Amino acid sequence: MGSLSSGSNDYGRRARVASKEIARAGSELKNEALYAIADNLLNNKEVIKEQNLRDIQGVESFGLSESERDRIVLTDSRIDSMAQGVRQIATLPDPVGELFDMDTRPNGMVIGKRRVPLGVICSIFENRPNVTIDISALSLKAGNACILRGGKEAINSNRILTRLIQEAISRTGLSKDVVQFVDGTDRSLVDELLEMSDYIDLMVPRGGSEFINFVKNNARMPVLLGGIGVCHTYVDRIVDECKARNIVMNAKVKRPSVCNALDTLLVHSKSAPTFLPAIAKRLGEAGVEMRCDNRSLAVLGPCNDQIRLKEAQPEDFGKEFLDLIIAIKVVDSLEEAIGHIDEFGSGHSEAIVTEDYSAAMKFLDQVDAAAVFVNVSTYFHDGGQFGLGAEVGISTQKLHARGPLGLKEITSYKWIVFGDGQVRE
Amino acid sequence: MGSLSSGSNDYGRRARVASKEIARAGSELKNEALYAIADNLLNNKEVIKEQNLRDIQGVESFGLSESERDRIVLTDSRIDSMAQGVRQIATLPDPVGELFDMDTRPNGMVIGKRRVPLGVICSIFENRPNVTIDISALSLKAGNACILRGGKEAINSNRILTRLIQEAISRTGLSKDVVQFVDGTDRSLVDELLEMSDYIDLMVPRGGSEFINFVKNNARMPVLLGGIGVCHTYVDRIVDECKARNIVMNAKVKRPSVCNALDTLLVHSKSAPTFLPAIAKRLGEAGVEMRCDNRSLAVLGPCNDQIRLKEAQPEDFGKEFLDLIIAIKVVDSLEEAIGHIDEFGSGHSEAIVTEDYSAAMKFLDQVDAAAVFVNVSTYFHDGGQFGLGAEVGISTQKLHARGPLGLKEITSYKWIVFGDGQVRE
Repeated sequence: MGSLSSGSNDYGRRARVASKEIARAGSELKNEALYAIADNLLNNKEVIKEQNLRDIQGVESFGLSESERDRIVLTDSRIDSMAQGVRQIATLPDPVGELFDMDTRPNGMVIGKRRVPLGVICSIFENRPNVTIDISALSLKAGNACILRGGKEAINSNRILTRLIQEAISRTGLSKDVVQFVDGTDRSLVDELLEMSDYIDLMVPRGGSEFINFVKNNARMPVLLGGIGVCHTYVDRIVDECKARNIVMNAKVKRPSVCNALDTLLVHSKSAPTFLPAIAKRLGEAGVEMRCDNRSLAVLGPCNDQIRLKEAQPEDFGKEFLDLIIAIKVVDSLEEAIGHIDEFGSGHSEAIVTEDYSAAMKFLDQVDAAAVFVNVSTYFHDGGQFGLGAEVGISTQKLHARGPLGLKEITSYKWIVFGDGQVRE
Repeated sequence: MGSLSSGSNDYGRRARVASKEIARAGSELKNEALYAIADNLLNNKEVIKEQNLRDIQGVESFGLSESERDRIVLTDSRIDSMAQGVRQIATLPDPVGELFDMDTRPNGMVIGKRRVPLGVICSIFENRPNVTIDISALSLKAGNACILRGGKEAINSNRILTRLIQEAISRTGLSKDVVQFVDGTDRSLVDELLEMSDYIDLMVPRGGSEFINFVKNNARMPVLLGGIGVCHTYVDRIVDECKARNIVMNAKVKRPSVCNALDTLLVHSKSAPTFLPAIAKRLGEAGVEMRCDNRSLAVLGPCNDQIRLKEAQPEDFGKEFLDLIIAIKVVDSLEEAIGHIDEFGSGHSEAIVTEDYSAAMKFLDQVDAAAVFVNVSTYFHDGGQFGLGAEVGISTQKLHARGPLGLKEITSYKWIVFGDGQVRE
């Protein structure tokens, strides 16, 4: 394929035109399109699995790990749950048109904000084909057009999924350009997308930290940064150890490959003698490798020989493992824990487990992250769990939106002013 | 002076440290600092005017126009009004700590957002020394540290103003690094600031379009774009001509050098025969040069010989004049007016004057700009007029904030989650 911005491959211009159409579409029409997408996925399971199989068979040549391979696989039940996700987005309130901060000014002008779509969203993502569905559906519901570029490992799956999405959208009378798929694996296409600031209002990269940084440094348009979670859980001095164990296990073991999974466990020195052996036993049973500082090793060393204990290296702190690995460190105070998080955290998800009211409030107050948790697992950091219905990603930047990006977070607003001939002195 | 990021000139690192201090300062302390700033300005009028005079005397060598020169001048009454502005910011509600979108999830977690400062704001601006005061005061109130870099034409004024601000801040016990001034005129200092993405969370350029574009293309951190206003007012078919005249005059003449001033007047062909001669008379009396398309010339030509009429050139449409110049065009429909605005507007301020309800609603709906006005002057597009108290600038981008940037618009939020041992299945 040739350039993205000329001739028949004019993705940017077509997205801009489609964005104006979808911006003006009513909720009913948008929801009709979403239900049509869900139906089209369910009616075409066999062809989806067939194309997916081509990706799976090709995967060996890319040298992916088993868990990376698993992220690509589409089964009947995964297709069911993708379709279910799209239907759920149809049931969410339409953010477009919401009026807020309305007021009457002393001179009689009625003024306020009206929520409008952002315009064109582009997402460049690695692997998981369900991202194609999630971002298409959220973007459409929020009145945006989107341009998607997935990883080469899942190109056949992404191609069939976007074809089914476009078919469904066309059936409702909307332009299929509301969702476009960049059908090519050439890396130069990414470079081209990153230059298209005239046509793309927001770039949402999803992938590893190296890739995210590449996009950040090369995109000419605003980028929503996120998805890199170096997450801490601090077990305080006064603690319900049963709660603490459950929270730590949930955050570390339930889904280690996601960005809200626990990476470093900080334990107050007063709690360490009883809490550490108990949690190490459970982590060990779950197959988690523990990389311990000297003080936690001193507690754990004598009482365990079967579990996977290692001495932590300096680089283990501040590392996102995305795997069954945890770093463990003993601290002497809440302040030391907050200081460690300040230095090593990525501003994603940070938790404290404590029965001490003042410690909880201080942690909430002073820790600077997209989400700060008291007595609950960082694994909850998710658009669905937070009540947003679904998410485009999790932002760790402070501008525009922080935390899960739901429908509202992919909109903008305009000021509207109803006057009656007022002039300003 | 040497590098901005080493030795005694380590602006970035010092701003980051100060930002943590001011982020945790309570409203009372911040307001105390603001009142101290206002007092220090009022108590030092003579020294301010003395330093300002040095700038004024030096201005000739920069070849500034009379109106550019006027923007630099500080008089007793301008200093009074700067101090008054700072006091007004002290009276505004503190945005930091606001809790919003709070809710209880089905599993009992209490979840919501807490407003927090952005961190470090940097503003690079041209000329007007009052920007130093406005941005310092707003930034401080919203719990941010700021780094200011003003134009060379006002460097003596800006230096004394920031010294007075820092003195006042220090007196309240806060670090003077909460407001820092880059005291140098070397353009390479700007390049250095634009690279400091580790230390600066938001860049706010203020100046002409060439300068704004330079910052946009070279900054390594998020940039708040704005301040470029190609503003239209459309006088519809059914119109109260008296209102329309007052609105057009207010938007064009009251303060032609600002970004919300009217640039292009669009007039429906049905209204043109009566409205155009009347408005041209008043515009002419106010010394406004009119650059007219053929159809408006055809109406105006015969009835006026004294007023300053010219044939419009193609580049007059879509141009921000910042002066007593207006482009005039006759259109045949609301749709043509909206189409013209879509093509030539900069997304800043757009107005319709009409007595037709459906036309008003369609204009509000379809025009894509930071602020859309019905029957009122675009000159109202201003943080103070919109009830925000004051503004850092006016954003024309869709991300983060659009329109006037008040206190809330220079903050972020974090999610806070109060749990009780919940784990996610």
